[in-house]
Amino acid sequence: MPRKIVIIGANAAGVDAASAARKTDRKAEITLITREKFGVYSRCGLPFVIGGHIPSFEDLIVYPPSYYRMMKLNLKLETEAKEIDTTKRVVEVEGKEGTESIEFDTLILATGARAFVPPIKGVDKEGVFSLRTIDDGKAIVKAMEKAKSAVVIGAGFIGLETAVALVERGIKTTVVELLPYIMPTLFDKDMADRAMRLLEEKGLKFIVGKGVDEILGGDKVSSVSVGGEEIPADLVVVATGVRPNVELAKNAGITIGESRGIRVDKRMQTSCEGIYAAGDCAESICRVTHRPMLIQLGTNAVRQAKVAGINAAGGYATMLPSLGSAVSRMFDIEVGATGVTEYLAKKSGMEVVSATFASKTRASYYPGAKPIWIKLIVEKEMERIVGAQIIGGEEVTQRVNALSFAIMKQMTVRELAKADTCYAPPVNETWEPMVLAAELALRKL
Amino acid sequence: MPRKIVIIGANAAGVDAASAARKTDRKAEITLITREKFGVYSRCGLPFVIGGHIPSFEDLIVYPPSYYRMMKLNLKLETEAKEIDTTKRVVEVEGKEGTESIEFDTLILATGARAFVPPIKGVDKEGVFSLRTIDDGKAIVKAMEKAKSAVVIGAGFIGLETAVALVERGIKTTVVELLPYIMPTLFDKDMADRAMRLLEEKGLKFIVGKGVDEILGGDKVSSVSVGGEEIPADLVVVATGVRPNVELAKNAGITIGESRGIRVDKRMQTSCEGIYAAGDCAESICRVTHRPMLIQLGTNAVRQAKVAGINAAGGYATMLPSLGSAVSRMFDIEVGATGVTEYLAKKSGMEVVSATFASKTRASYYPGAKPIWIKLIVEKEMERIVGAQIIGGEEVTQRVNALSFAIMKQMTVRELAKADTCYAPPVNETWEPMVLAAELALRKL
Repeated sequence: MPRKIVIIGANAAGVDAASAARKTDRKAEITLITREKFGVYSRCGLPFVIGGHIPSFEDLIVYPPSYYRMMKLNLKLETEAKEIDTTKRVVEVEGKEGTESIEFDTLILATGARAFVPPIKGVDKEGVFSLRTIDDGKAIVKAMEKAKSAVVIGAGFIGLETAVALVERGIKTTVVELLPYIMPTLFDKDMADRAMRLLEEKGLKFIVGKGVDEILGGDKVSSVSVGGEEIPADLVVVATGVRPNVELAKNAGITIGESRGIRVDKRMQTSCEGIYAAGDCAESICRVTHRPMLIQLGTNAVRQAKVAGINAAGGYATMLPSLGSAVSRMFDIEVGATGVTEYLAKKSGMEVVSATFASKTRASYYPGAKPIWIKLIVEKEMERIVGAQIIGGEEVTQRVNALSFAIMKQMTVRELAKADTCYAPPVNETWEPMVLAAELALRKL
Repeated sequence: MPRKIVIIGANAAGVDAASAARKTDRKAEITLITREKFGVYSRCGLPFVIGGHIPSFEDLIVYPPSYYRMMKLNLKLETEAKEIDTTKRVVEVEGKEGTESIEFDTLILATGARAFVPPIKGVDKEGVFSLRTIDDGKAIVKAMEKAKSAVVIGAGFIGLETAVALVERGIKTTVVELLPYIMPTLFDKDMADRAMRLLEEKGLKFIVGKGVDEILGGDKVSSVSVGGEEIPADLVVVATGVRPNVELAKNAGITIGESRGIRVDKRMQTSCEGIYAAGDCAESICRVTHRPMLIQLGTNAVRQAKVAGINAAGGYATMLPSLGSAVSRMFDIEVGATGVTEYLAKKSGMEVVSATFASKTRASYYPGAKPIWIKLIVEKEMERIVGAQIIGGEEVTQRVNALSFAIMKQMTVRELAKADTCYAPPVNETWEPMVLAAELALRKL
């Protein structure tokens, strides 16, 4: 009998898990269940369609239907998993053709996350959106046609990328963030404020450290009240984070972890044998603090999914702890980070020093050099790099990756100060700014 | 009595050594001796001035005279060191004002390297140049005014960068390389041929695996004969590598190493106590093979110089083994490498596997994605990455640095296949190509 593998969710984690399972077991029956109308598409690309960089939302769809046929994946669209029976090993689903019980030998929960919409008064008015799906994106683009002003609530990556897209489309946009600085999971206040100033120079407006009192208007939004001030808005995007979809797992008696994601072991197996989880619904372990956390990035999702898929198909693979390495581009500014922030390090009880080095992306005499800032966070006892934050006009992404490798391999700041970096006038300075940031941090140890 | 530090050479190594010495000993008397008319300037920038990217050669001069005054460095321009007496601790110099004996407590040899011009018939004709100094660069620019065609002999970085500059200035240019492929110290044949094809598409012509028979013409060059074929050339640049300037050291009884550079210990001290060497004249140790080698890159020079400067001033610093990480940009193509080539690894007795992964620099649906190729070289027993070669349209430099960190920290290819890389649609793919190259290499182990 071929192995029956059922995967709930057919986005990045679901489909990557299915592909890994297929490569591990060529004969398995693999079924993918999704509520959506499409197979996997790039959620990360949504703001860039809104901003006009990518022609259409359909461009974000990763695979044509032929891919699923070629990989022999039974993709059930517009189908919802209602219940998991962990004893009988069946999933109850409801689709276009009614309800069905699908048997499984192994199950992968790739149920993802949903946009969290806080209970703000007026949040149900016409013209208020969140951005999680292609349908959300299309609704925002339609609303943009007549909009002159917008408010984005929340200054994480999705909020900022959407706000940038609105500005690029000629809409006057204000970002409101309840916390005292933008990108609070990625950046410390010093770097966040630097990024905010750069974004302000490009025309984005910010209100930080204040919550939204109320969304005002008739049936349709007309303004947003923030700390008593009224900001005109024909369009509001709520981007106050996402919550893992764990209800299905919870109802089936599967353990939810301290981070509120599904608890998993190194093989991405949940508390229930043969049931795995991957992606935004599943916990990660932080490589620096060794504590469970939610990462909720596409990169982390596909890495988890691959491990879950291999194991669910009878293979052996383990997930390493995560660093949450992330990057984005807003206007012509790149922002990225890896490891822990200084704030999180201290909150976790670590003593750290930090240093920020400002430099240029090319030799001083080479035209077109752009500014770059690199912040390093170094743990005091072992002198290891535990986090990095970068803002720059170019070449940020791979510096984040380089420092991710450094943290993974427990590089000390002394070693980084002696690293063998490369140089050419059009692409960087003789002394690499990461190395000079390390020198600066060394002097504080 | 203040410590007397004498530094022979005032380019990258000399001046960085002087700066490091000054920071270590604020009272030392520091004297810099150079044959040139300028203090330190960026040799790496010379081809980019020729290509018109940088307005003038003077832009390459790193520090104004005031820097030397501020750092209290006694800079003696147009002055040549003739002899070192290691017993009496004096350097005999000859300058504009005649000869002089300069006493030293410690001495740093930063004598650099000179362009190696092979004994080709006709090499002394008018219109034949090498490119090592600002004067060389100015002579080439002057000759370019009337030139319609050029031949560059040698396909290392300097040769290729100069050839690209000539093409950018509208001169029909052919590069002749005696070895069977271009950039032979940086790349293996597979990657070199790929880079060559990309450069050919931009208009550069190549003849590889053939030597120059003769440079033809009257007093002035008119063509170059290569393997019997005659190539018209109003201008010839000989870029067949550089040779370390070690004669002064050799005559003073200082040991020259197996690489033909000055032998140094971890503190950059030569065989003679209190005499240090740094930069193109000094050996490095290869981090992979553990053998002495010549690196002759600006980055390596300044790292060595810093160590030499600190030690010469009574401090303590050590030089780590080198990886020869290097990068260049030619037209809109970036090429870079770190660690050993497959060829060198095998020649050194190592068993290795290699894998080359082709990808894009942005998400497949994001406009403007450029191709990128990443080759990894992995040692079979320990499964560690020992070398990498990259060609790409953007974001090559920091990938070279990332893989340099990986080699430095002895990352295995299994670890790289699980690395925590970052992603955003405008800046890379979800699965980082370095990680996928590692996957590909894993399957060959």
